[in-house]
Amino acid sequence: MVEIGSRRWVIAEGFIPSRGIEGDRALESHEAFCLLNAGDSPAHLEITLYFADRPPVGPYRATVPAQRTLHLRANDLDDPEPVPRDTDYAVLIQSDAPVVVQHTRLDSRPERFALLSAAAHPVG
Amino acid sequence: MVEIGSRRWVIAEGFIPSRGIEGDRALESHEAFCLLNAGDSPAHLEITLYFADRPPVGPYRATVPAQRTLHLRANDLDDPEPVPRDTDYAVLIQSDAPVVVQHTRLDSRPERFALLSAAAHPVG
Amino acid sequence: MVEIGSRRWVIAEGFIPSRGIEGDRALESHEAFCLLNAGDSPAHLEITLYFADRPPVGPYRATVPAQRTLHLRANDLDDPEPVPRDTDYAVLIQSDAPVVVQHTRLDSRPERFALLSAAAHPVG
Amino acid sequence: MVEIGSRRWVIAEGFIPSRGIEGDRALESHEAFCLLNAGDSPAHLEITLYFADRPPVGPYRATVPAQRTLHLRANDLDDPEPVPRDTDYAVLIQSDAPVVVQHTRLDSRPERFALLSAAAHPVG
Repeated sequence: MVEIGSRRWVIAEGFIPSRGIEGDRALESHEAFCLLNAGDSPAHLEITLYFADRPPVGPYRATVPAQRTLHLRANDLDDPEPVPRDTDYAVLIQSDAPVVVQHTRLDSRPERFALLSAAAHPVG
Repeated sequence: MVEIGSRRWVIAEGFIPSRGIEGDRALESHEAFCLLNAGDSPAHLEITLYFADRPPVGPYRATVPAQRTLHLRANDLDDPEPVPRDTDYAVLIQSDAPVVVQHTRLDSRPERFALLSAAAHPVG
Repeated sequence: MVEIGSRRWVIAEGFIPSRGIEGDRALESHEAFCLLNAGDSPAHLEITLYFADRPPVGPYRATVPAQRTLHLRANDLDDPEPVPRDTDYAVLIQSDAPVVVQHTRLDSRPERFALLSAAAHPVG
Repeated sequence: MVEIGSRRWVIAEGFIPSRGIEGDRALESHEAFCLLNAGDSPAHLEITLYFADRPPVGPYRATVPAQRTLHLRANDLDDPEPVPRDTDYAVLIQSDAPVVVQHTRLDSRPERFALLSAAAHPVG
C-alpha cells in the first residue's frame, strides 16, 4: 500500500487576527490546520510553533484517528499556551503516521471577509 | 510521453457552507475538485470522503474523458449520499489514469464573497 | 547551475467570470499565469487550453525573455481564439527552458472582490 | 536530522497594489514572504526581484535566525531600491540554510479586502 502523505509538514505563514466578526464561530477570524489520516493507524501529532522573536513553543499534541480528518483550529490550541493573536508565527507538524496537511485562514477583519488556503510543505 | 499528473490526490480541507448567495448557481457557496486529464484514455475516478467522527463514505464515481477537464462540484455529489453542509471533510481521489487536481472554494457567506484555492497533494 | 523550475506545468482550475468591475483593468475579473524565467535563454511557451466538452485549443504562443517575469492574462489570449468567459477550462504550459508558474484569479463579481492563487503543478 | 525545507525558492506572482486601506499597517495592501528556519543555524537570504521589462534587482539581504520565523513584507524592502507598486514582479530567494517559504498578499483595493496565499516553489 502506498503511504498517503508525509510525517513532517511546515506552514510558514501563521497569523490569527484579533479583530473580526464576533459571536459566530464559523465566521470569526481563525486559522486551521486541516489533516487527513487515510491510514489504518491513529496519527499522533506533535506541533511546534515558531515565532519571530522568542524560542519555539510546544509540543502541542493532537491525534487524528485512523480513516478520519481533523480540521484543527489554531485558535483552540491552549496547551502549553494559547496562540497569540496579531502575531506572526510558523508551524511544524510531526506525526508518527503519514498525513496530508492543508492550511487555511478565514479573516473577517474590517467586517469584511476573506479566505486564504495553501498546500502545506511536506518535508523529507 | 511523460505522464501528466498522478493517480492519487488528497484535498485535506473540505467544507461547504450552508449559507451564501442563493438563486445564482455561479455564486452559491460551493467547493470544486478541478481535474485535467491531458492523456489519451478516459480517467475513471473513485472519490472517498473522510469525516471527523464517522467512517469514510464512497466511492463516488466520475469520469474525465481523454483530453478534457472536469470541474466537479462537491455540492453535486449524491451517490452514495450527498456531502453534508457545514461539516469538515477531506477527499481522496484515485484515478486509473494520471490527472492533475486543484481545489477551490467559493464562499458567499455573510452576503460577501471570498475564494480559496490550493494545489491538491499528489501521492506516490 | 541548478535549473530553476520545470518545462511543463498544469493549472487544473481555469474560469474567467464575465461579470465584475468594469472600466478599471486592474480590477476587472481576470486570470493570470505568472511565470518566472530565471535562466539565461528565452523561454518559448506553447499553451494548450482544455475544456469540458470539446477538443483542446492551442497552441497559444508567448515568450518569457531571459531573466524576466511574465504575468500573462488569460483574458488577453486571442490566437488561435479568445478564452471563453464563464467556462471551465484547464491549462498545460510547455516551455523549451525551465520556468516557474503560479496561477491567480482576481474575481470582482457581485461588485465585490476576491482573489485566489495556487501553485501550478510541475510535471516530469 | 532531516533538513526542513530547501535553499532556493521562487514566487512567480508578485504585485503590490498602490491602492488600499490607509493608516492601518495591518490592512494596507501588502505582500509578504513568510519563512521558517527550523534549523540550528541562522539562514542568510539573498533575494532577487525579476521584472517584465528590465534587468533583475538585488540582492536584497535578510536573516532568519535559528528556530525563528520571518514574515518579510515586500513593501518594506528598500535596499538596493524599493519594490515598485502596481508592477508585476517575481522573486528568487536563495538561502545558505534550509528554509520553507509561503507567499501571501493582502489586497485592500476598492475599500474591500481579499487575501491570496500560495506555496512557493522549492528548487533543486
